Formats: sequence, structure tokens, C-alpha cells
Amino acid sequence: MSVTAPQGFEAAGVAVGLKSTGKPDVAVVVNRGPLKVGAAVFTSNRAKANPILWSQEVIRDGVVEAIVLNSGGANCFTGSFGFQTTHQTAEKAAELLDVSAGDILVCSTGLIGTGDEVFRAKVLEGTERGIAGLSADGGEAASLAIMTTDSKPKRAVATGDGWSIGGMAKGAGMLAPGLATMLVVITTDAVLDSTQADAALRAATGRTFDRLDSDGCMSTNDQVTLMVSGASGVTPDADAFAAALADVCQDLARQLQGDAEGASHDITIEVVNAASEEDAVEVGRSVARNNLFKAAIFGNDPNWGRVLAAIGTTQAAFDPYDVDVWMNAVRVCSAGGPDAPREAVDLTPRATHLVIDLKVGAATATVLTNDLTHDYVHENSAYSS
Amino acid sequence: MSVTAPQGFEAAGVAVGLKSTGKPDVAVVVNRGPLKVGAAVFTSNRAKANPILWSQEVIRDGVVEAIVLNSGGANCFTGSFGFQTTHQTAEKAAELLDVSAGDILVCSTGLIGTGDEVFRAKVLEGTERGIAGLSADGGEAASLAIMTTDSKPKRAVATGDGWSIGGMAKGAGMLAPGLATMLVVITTDAVLDSTQADAALRAATGRTFDRLDSDGCMSTNDQVTLMVSGASGVTPDADAFAAALADVCQDLARQLQGDAEGASHDITIEVVNAASEEDAVEVGRSVARNNLFKAAIFGNDPNWGRVLAAIGTTQAAFDPYDVDVWMNAVRVCSAGGPDAPREAVDLTPRATHLVIDLKVGAATATVLTNDLTHDYVHENSAYSS
Repeated sequence: MSVTAPQGFEAAGVAVGLKSTGKPDVAVVVNRGPLKVGAAVFTSNRAKANPILWSQEVIRDGVVEAIVLNSGGANCFTGSFGFQTTHQTAEKAAELLDVSAGDILVCSTGLIGTGDEVFRAKVLEGTERGIAGLSADGGEAASLAIMTTDSKPKRAVATGDGWSIGGMAKGAGMLAPGLATMLVVITTDAVLDSTQADAALRAATGRTFDRLDSDGCMSTNDQVTLMVSGASGVTPDADAFAAALADVCQDLARQLQGDAEGASHDITIEVVNAASEEDAVEVGRSVARNNLFKAAIFGNDPNWGRVLAAIGTTQAAFDPYDVDVWMNAVRVCSAGGPDAPREAVDLTPRATHLVIDLKVGAATATVLTNDLTHDYVHENSAYSS
Repeated sequence: MSVTAPQGFEAAGVAVGLKSTGKPDVAVVVNRGPLKVGAAVFTSNRAKANPILWSQEVIRDGVVEAIVLNSGGANCFTGSFGFQTTHQTAEKAAELLDVSAGDILVCSTGLIGTGDEVFRAKVLEGTERGIAGLSADGGEAASLAIMTTDSKPKRAVATGDGWSIGGMAKGAGMLAPGLATMLVVITTDAVLDSTQADAALRAATGRTFDRLDSDGCMSTNDQVTLMVSGASGVTPDADAFAAALADVCQDLARQLQGDAEGASHDITIEVVNAASEEDAVEVGRSVARNNLFKAAIFGNDPNWGRVLAAIGTTQAAFDPYDVDVWMNAVRVCSAGGPDAPREAVDLTPRATHLVIDLKVGAATATVLTNDLTHDYVHENSAYSS
């Protein structure tokens, strides 16, 4: 059900030929109210796609009626023509829904530089057909239409005391924070105002999507949107809602990690006893972005030296000769020296758990990443050709 | 000839079984004077190997008598036993050369965590045999003994007006600045004091080795050493010496790039019209470290969108919608939009030239990198097992 699990939402997914495979490629999610609250966070990449430039303006007043998303083309670096395409998409949806174009979010994903006249015509056609096909159980179709190199759709649902949250996500490469190459739409029928929605979304994404760092590459098109219908009529307990929203985000983040391009290991990097949460994140990210470490994990090689070499590039508080490293529950390095033999570590399972004990404080953070594989190189050397 | 090309130096390379292949693995370079001036730059990784910790102390007084280098083990994160091994190596060399142990530099390269009693015995044996075998034409043997995954030795020579410079380098992976996984020894018979030697070395490495960023991974063991014998009796013109030293460093850096693990393209990233040299370096490095861009080049795919997405992660001054990108002399992106079709770009040659025109200033910088290939993943997934 994903985005149509909560009351007050309709969705659709249609195929208009943006994907050469003929699979669905335009999704629409509409908020039927009574509230029309929206919040969104965007890529922090300074090179932003046209839909991001548009959506950043739309979200300012906290009012969102609908969101149109397409796969099969990023509409990024496509000039003023590309921006007009995004604008026309919003206007088309607004006209058909009888609302303001300034309340329509637009998202695109696919190859950068794709956004010509054929692209425009297909996106507009998809917007029209999507709105014509809206239904209260269209969440599944919508989740299929936003897929790019994803091997499976990503959906999550959480329920509270009289309210619920639904979400869908796409993303399989360019997964690095601020955010990852992800498009995410989350809906809820809980009663929230735009300030509450914005705060809840930022808190949840900051510790979930922003700590998924599959390949260190930051996208131009990322957007995570929260749409609030209030159709349940229930004002949720703030903490309970925050926890449920974080659960949905983490569930989707884990699904993105599990489907990352070419990956053979899902690596959880848990940094403990750091001086601050910022230090813990910096250390986790340095390891997540170290190609030599990632290649070693692909080869089932518990090469802890590469972990320490990565940590050494950070500014975090730690003594390199007082660090412990655990791999899949085996302490391979203690106090900056060799501990258990490499034969003691079993890295054959896909789930890989790295613990780095900095021994300087009480803060902790967890960063999710993947290994660096032949298939990653293969998929990304052949993406646009 | 490499390090024994200048007058006043003797060198040797011997095999003591640190490498399982039986190839040479310990090198010694001795300065016979009359000057015994030395300068060195070290990895900026905070996780430093024992030889780095030792050599940083040795270099403080600017006096260097000799350097002992081993491959086949990094002696990094090997505890106090490992540090004692480095210390004993220096003492052994000092005793045999009848000089102070405080004037003996030590370098190691190989697997982190390697440095047990067997390692120590072999390094000490190699030090002894290397010093026994010193000769004025031992530069070639020394350059062979420092190789790890290098497929060929790296040597360079430059001559000035009555003086000369010789150099050798090793390095094929973990190539990222500050510095790369490189061991470099450069010798000269020009007359320089330690202040001049230090300044000249920092200036040369700052624009050569520090701008080689093959795989973004910073090593624990890097060291570039300059040894000055003054045996020519000639005080060089400062500018001429600086230029020759930079030439030797750039020559060696290019050889390291050309032999980088698994690489199929040597990518020169030239950033022009930046607001500052720092901006230009930051932009070049962001592209050099972008796995998606590097995989695309491996696939001969002129995917300029990934270049812009990488630049967008920097803090450099630029407008993403006013950037031009050239690949092998074809402008594939102008003013942040598509230009020449991808078919116009021939990426089959190993030498790949990327030009990024930021259009905001007059500064420029060039960063060297490699593509991300199946072979890179393969070599680095099987390194220690």
C-alpha cells in the first residue's frame, strides 16, 4: 500500500515510454485532505536538478497538494527548457486537480542531461494519465513507477494510535547523504501543522537517510517529502510520531542499502565511545567511503588496517593506538594492534557488522554502506551508454 | 641510475624473504657527503606507521646520513614491538656506517599489521646485507627493492648546471595525497642547506605528489625524502633547482599514476578559471574521488553529469549553470547543459584529459587520477588474503 496506506491519499503509476523497457515511469500522489501540509528535504549538492529548484520554492509555504515523479530522465542540466518542463508539469497537474501550481512538487530521476522535447511530452502525458488513474490503492503502482536501477520497489508502513504513516522510496546508486540518490514520498493521516511536519522530517532523515552512504556520490535530484492529510482526525503524541516516522525512514534506508547497485555486503558501521555524535558520524563516513576497505569486504577479507587508515584521515578525537575494531563480533584489532587472527572472522554473510571503539567518550552513531564490487563497477561503467 | 645518479650517494637492494616471491625487499641509500642534509614530508594521516613516527623525529635537525626502506610489511599498528623494530633498524645501520642512529631514516611498505619477530629479523638482515653491498651504481637495485604491487620500478633523473637530481618511487594503490601510498627518495649533489632543502621539497611535492589522487585512500606509511650530498660543489640557482626538483617529482608522480592498481585510464583533471588555486584543487579532487565518474571513464562513457554532480559537493566558487566541461578536447557540457553528443568523444586512449572551466577567476590546478575498474576491485579484494 505504501503511500496510500494512510487515509486521505490517492496515487497512480503509469508507463509513458520514458523507460526503454516500457515499465511504469510516472507516479502521482495526491493529498485529498482535509489538511494539505507538506515538508521536504533536498539534496545538499550545489548542482541541483530543475525539479529540486522548483520544489524548493513550492515547499516554502508548507502547503502541498500533490507530487509528480518521473523516472527515465533526471531533467538536470537541461537548461531553461528543462526548468520550463518542470513548471509545465506542475501547471498541468494543478489544472487537472483544480489547485495552484505553486502547491505541486515535482521529482525526476535518471540520467543527468536528459530532458528534451520528447521527455517533456512524455512527462506531461504521464501527469495527465496518472491523475486520470488516481485511486486509493494506487500506492503500489506509484512505487513501481519511480524505480530506476532498483531491482525491487521499496515500501514501508507504520501505524500509531489512530493514525498511520506510509512511504515509498527509490534509489540504488549515488547513495550518499545530503541526501542519497533517492526519491522518497512519505504520507500520514495524523494531524500535524507544517512546522511540526518539517521538524519531524528533518529529525528522522538526519539519522536515517543522511547516514546511508553507499558509494560516497551525492546526487543532484534527491528529495524526501512528507505529505500530511490529517484525515484520521487524530493529533499524535509527538514522540510516538517521531519514532514511527524514524522507523519508516530507517526501514526504507535499509531497503535502499539492500538493493544498492552491485553490492554483495550490507555493512553496518557502528562507532561507539566517540567524543561527540559528529565525531562518530565523521569516523563512520570515512570508513564508508574508503574504496580499499570496501573492496576488502567484497573479498571477505577482514583488513582492519584499512579501517584505521580511513579513521586517520578524520579530525575526530581519538588515539590511533587506542582503538578497537570488531568485525562480525570478532575483535580483529585492539589498542591499535593485531588481535584475533583473520581466520576467526566469517565475512561470507551479506550482513556485515563493523564496530569501532574510539574509547574517548560516550557518543555513538551508525553509518550504513555497501562493499565495492565488480558488479558496482560494471553497472556504473555502462549506465548511460 | 635513479638515486645514485648524483655524486655522493651509494645504494643497494637485497632480498631477505619479506616478499613471498623472493624478490628484493630491502633498500639502503647512503649519503657520503660532504653535506649530510635531509628533508622529508610525511603522510598527513593521523594513523601513522612506526617508521613515520621515527623518521619525523630524525628529520627535525635536517641531518640525514642514510635511509633504510623495506617492502613486504608496513610495520604499522604493530605496537611497541614494531616501534622497537624501526629503532633497531636505525641502530643497526648507524653502527655499520659509524654514524648516529638519530640520522637514519626508516621507511616500510606493505600490509598494515605486519611486523612480528620474523619481520624484524629479516629487516635487520637486509639492513646489514644492504650496507655490505652498497655501491655507486646501486640505485637501480634499490628502486626494485621498494616495489610492492608496482609492475615496474619508477626512476627519474634531472640535470642542472653542474648538479643533478635523481629519484626513485614506489606506489600503486592507496594513492591519495597528503601523500599517496608512496615511498620516494630523491637525491642531489647540489649544495643546499636544510632550510633550502625543506622549502624546495615542500614546494615541489605540493603541486605534484599531493595532486595525485588515484583512489582517494590515504596511506599510513607515505614519505618523500630529499637527501643532499653537495658533492658537486655547485650552489644551484634557486629557481632552476626548484624547477628541476618539480620535474623529477612530477615525472615520478606520472609513473605512479601510469602503474596504478588495475587502472585502464590515466586521467588528467585540469580545472581552469577558478577563483583560487585552492578552489581549483578542491574541484579537481572532488571529481578524482567520484566513483561513478571513475567507473564511467572505465566504460569509455563521457558522462559529464557525474562531473557536475561531483563539483556540486564542493565549497568552491562557481555557478553550476555556467560551467563548461571538455573531455579529450570535445566540449560535452557548456553553461551547465548538454553540448557535443557523446559519440563525438573518444575515450579509448589510456590518456584522458578532462577540462573543467569554472568561469569565475584566473586560477588553475591539475589533479591526476585513474579510473575505477574491475581489476582495481579484484586486486584490492584479494590483497591480504
